Amino acid sequence: MKLCRFDDDQLGLIQGESVLNVSQALVVLPSLNWPYPHGDQLIANLDAVMAVIKDIRDTAPAKPLSEVKLLSLVANPMNIVGAPINYQKHIDESNVDDGIVSQRPITNIWDWGMFLKSNSSLVGASEGVALRFVENRNDHEVELAVIIGKAGTNITAENALDHVAGYAIGLDMTTRGKELQSFRKSSDSYSVLGPWMVTKDEIEDPNSLDLNISVNGEERQSSNTDQLVYNVQQCIEYTTTRYTVYPGDIIMTGTPEGVGPVEPGDIMTAEIEKIGKMEVAVRAA
Amino acid sequence: MKLCRFDDDQLGLIQGESVLNVSQALVVLPSLNWPYPHGDQLIANLDAVMAVIKDIRDTAPAKPLSEVKLLSLVANPMNIVGAPINYQKHIDESNVDDGIVSQRPITNIWDWGMFLKSNSSLVGASEGVALRFVENRNDHEVELAVIIGKAGTNITAENALDHVAGYAIGLDMTTRGKELQSFRKSSDSYSVLGPWMVTKDEIEDPNSLDLNISVNGEERQSSNTDQLVYNVQQCIEYTTTRYTVYPGDIIMTGTPEGVGPVEPGDIMTAEIEKIGKMEVAVRAA
Repeated sequence: MKLCRFDDDQLGLIQGESVLNVSQALVVLPSLNWPYPHGDQLIANLDAVMAVIKDIRDTAPAKPLSEVKLLSLVANPMNIVGAPINYQKHIDESNVDDGIVSQRPITNIWDWGMFLKSNSSLVGASEGVALRFVENRNDHEVELAVIIGKAGTNITAENALDHVAGYAIGLDMTTRGKELQSFRKSSDSYSVLGPWMVTKDEIEDPNSLDLNISVNGEERQSSNTDQLVYNVQQCIEYTTTRYTVYPGDIIMTGTPEGVGPVEPGDIMTAEIEKIGKMEVAVRAA
Repeated sequence: MKLCRFDDDQLGLIQGESVLNVSQALVVLPSLNWPYPHGDQLIANLDAVMAVIKDIRDTAPAKPLSEVKLLSLVANPMNIVGAPINYQKHIDESNVDDGIVSQRPITNIWDWGMFLKSNSSLVGASEGVALRFVENRNDHEVELAVIIGKAGTNITAENALDHVAGYAIGLDMTTRGKELQSFRKSSDSYSVLGPWMVTKDEIEDPNSLDLNISVNGEERQSSNTDQLVYNVQQCIEYTTTRYTVYPGDIIMTGTPEGVGPVEPGDIMTAEIEKIGKMEVAVRAA
C-alpha cells in the first residue's frame, strides 16, 4: 500500500492518480492521555489500520492527487536519524568541494556514527522547504528513508527488515557551515518525508532502487541504493548499536554524489524507484 | 513549585521530604488522538495544571520522597538539545585529556553549534544509567537543564526567560569515542532529567547557581552557572537560530570541568542550588 497523510490530517491510500480517503481506519487508534507512549501511533498500529483499509477501500471517496496537500505520513517520530557519509562518491565529492565545510576528516560512516535531526524539522512534500539562512549554501540531499515499524535495539542486519514498516523519499536539507550536523540540518522543514510511505511488502529489495533529484528540471543527483556503503539492513544494525528505535522513527540512509545548492523559488523533484516522485518547492523562511 | 513524575506516571508536588500526589490535576490535560500536537502536553498546559494543584494541595495524599520512583517530569519532548562546549575550563580540560577524543578542534560553542540527544535516551533519577559500552569510557556531565514552556523560534536573549517553564538537573551521559555527539550521547538512559522540575518563579537568576556532582562520595565536578560561556538566555537565543522549540523541550546548557568515567555499581550524586539533589545509580545495560 501507498499511504499518505493529507489536507487536515486525513489518511489517504494512493491509487493511481487518486487519493482514497480512508481516514475511517483511524478509529482503531487509541485515544491517549499524557504521557503518551513512545512511537508514532499510526505506525505502531499499522496492521490494524491496514486491515480496516482493506474493508473500506472500495467505497472510500476519491480526490485527485494533484489537489491534495501532502504532509509527512509519520507525525510523531521519537527520533529522526541520519547517515552522514554513506555513498562513496559523496564522500569523494565532499573531500574536494570547498563549499562542503567539515571540521573533521571526511572518512567513513563507522568513524562518524549516525546523527540526529530535530523532530521539529519534519514536513511533507506539499509543505515545501523554507530556507532559514538564504545567505548560506543550502543543499538538497535526496535519500531513501526507512520508516521503522517495530521497536528494537541491537537489531542484527539479518533481522533488520522485520523492524521496517515501509519506505519513503527523504530530503535531508542541509545548511553548509562549520557547525555540527544536528544543528545545521534541523531547521523547520529541513527534513522532508514523502510523498507517501510504501509498505515494505511492495519493495522486495531496498538495496537496489534508483533515486534521483532534479532542480528546476536539471538533474542533480542520480544513483542507486546499491551504492550505499552501509545498506539498509546495516544502517538499522548500526543505528541500534546506540539507539533504541520505535515505530515511526525515520532513518535517512544517506545521500549520493551531486549535492548542491537550492534557492528560494526553486522546485526540487525527487524520485525513488517503486516509491514515487514528489515536487518540493523552496522558499525563504 | 517543585513538580515530579513518580511511580506509575503520578504527578507529584515536592514538599520537604514528602511527595504530595496531585495527579488529580492531570484531568485538565486533553485526551488526544493521532497525530498529537507538538510538545509535551503537561508542560504545554502547566498553568492550568498548577491552578488545580493550588486548589488540591492541602488535601493531597503524601508519600515519603525516599519511597517514590522518580521519572523524568517531561515525558514527551519534541527535542533534547545539548550545548557541547560551554564552560571554558571544560574546553581547556578537553584539549589536554586524551580520553576526551575529538575529531574536530575543540574551539567554541559558536563554532560547534548545539547538538541533539535522542528522545529515547531520556530517564528520571530513579531509573539510573545503564552503560551501553562498559569497555569504553563513559563520563558523567552534570548540567543545568532548561525546560521550555512556550514555543518559539528566533527568540532573543532579552525575551528568552519568557519561554522557560522551569529548571532541573541534567546528566548528559557520554560514551567517549570518535563518533558524532548525537550518536555517542543518546543510548537509552544517557539523558537523565531530575529529580524534579523547579518552576522558574523560584529561580530569579539561573546564571548564578552552584552545581556539582560526586561519584561514590568523591566530588568530581563543582562550578557555578556564572561560568557558562553562553548563559541560559544566550543558549535559548542560539538554539532557536536553528530550531523551533516547543513546551517540554530540554536544553542541557553544558558541563563544567571535572568530567570523568563511571562504572557499573557507581552512585552519582548531582546537586544544583535552588533545584535539589539526586542520586543516580550506574549499571551495565
